[in-house]
Amino acid sequence: MLLCDIGNTSYHFLKGDKEFKKDVDTFDPSTIKERTYYISVNKAVSQKLHLLENWIDLSSFIDWEKYYETMGVDRIFAIEAVENGIIIDAGSAITVDVVHNGAFEGGFIYPGLKAIELAYKNISPVLETTINFELDMSCLPKNTHNAISYAYLKPLRDEVLSHNLPIILTGGDASQLKKIFPEAKVETKLIFTSMQKIIASKN
Amino acid sequence: MLLCDIGNTSYHFLKGDKEFKKDVDTFDPSTIKERTYYISVNKAVSQKLHLLENWIDLSSFIDWEKYYETMGVDRIFAIEAVENGIIIDAGSAITVDVVHNGAFEGGFIYPGLKAIELAYKNISPVLETTINFELDMSCLPKNTHNAISYAYLKPLRDEVLSHNLPIILTGGDASQLKKIFPEAKVETKLIFTSMQKIIASKN
Repeated sequence: MLLCDIGNTSYHFLKGDKEFKKDVDTFDPSTIKERTYYISVNKAVSQKLHLLENWIDLSSFIDWEKYYETMGVDRIFAIEAVENGIIIDAGSAITVDVVHNGAFEGGFIYPGLKAIELAYKNISPVLETTINFELDMSCLPKNTHNAISYAYLKPLRDEVLSHNLPIILTGGDASQLKKIFPEAKVETKLIFTSMQKIIASKN
Repeated sequence: MLLCDIGNTSYHFLKGDKEFKKDVDTFDPSTIKERTYYISVNKAVSQKLHLLENWIDLSSFIDWEKYYETMGVDRIFAIEAVENGIIIDAGSAITVDVVHNGAFEGGFIYPGLKAIELAYKNISPVLETTINFELDMSCLPKNTHNAISYAYLKPLRDEVLSHNLPIILTGGDASQLKKIFPEAKVETKLIFTSMQKIIASKN
């Protein structure tokens, strides 16, 4: 049995306790012959997978009443794994969701690291930079590199901390964000744990 | 006499009290024959203007010691016009700068409205949206449109308000940002006022 969490850019697999990734643009899912439980926020991939019998979409196992119609299924699975906390899933977008006594209280969608770096580069070549996670956020910056890093990191950190909840980090950039949320718990397999829990509850 | 503030996307002119704009990609500055004082953050345009005798670069009139080397000259001119306050210049990037007793204390560079909308669209077609400036920021959103708007506006608002300073709004999107900073003063001609002040002081 395989588990697969499909995002905007990659298939993220779990087999036993081994994880691996495949590019959404180049990977052919029909090469997988064993039973694969998946969730997908990628409409183009979902359409392909609905034609493959061994790929089982777990999104139908969710009580959608608790969420909203266009909400990404990855956010929902992350929330289903948590009783109380603020979940930061740092992928191509960074979703931030608050869960209180197992109920979804709302959340927001911040641009992912690569997306924001590209956004600045597209505004002007002089704004092309990488985000500095070692930034001292206690004072306002006086150079372009830190002026952009501060704008991306400081308001996000303050917003998250304002909710006074345990912070759970997941997604590909979790280890980067850990630098500005040292108190956070990193759970790279949060969505897979949630998928396993939901499969077990339905069997 | 003309004044001109050149950004990443346009020439912004002031003649008397009349403002007009020209696209940086299509406008030929050699068609202007009268004396034109300008500042420019656009390197390609600056190179052209250095060859034209009637275009006078005001950036050399500034005491650069007070700022940092790669700082945009438009930010500096805005700061020069203010004694105490936090200046938000909302253009293709949104620069936010703190001035205390006429001294630059530091600042940050937030992505502009168009840049952020494009960034979300580039992450995924399901994140293509426009920013909702009428958003209720008192609770966490439960739909994609507001989840993106909240991520863009709420942390920015809180960061700006945390400095407890008079807020001055300028730039093309000043009137949009006024919706989340109702206490702010909108000064669309802030940079031109500063240019006039600096020209007067040098004559």
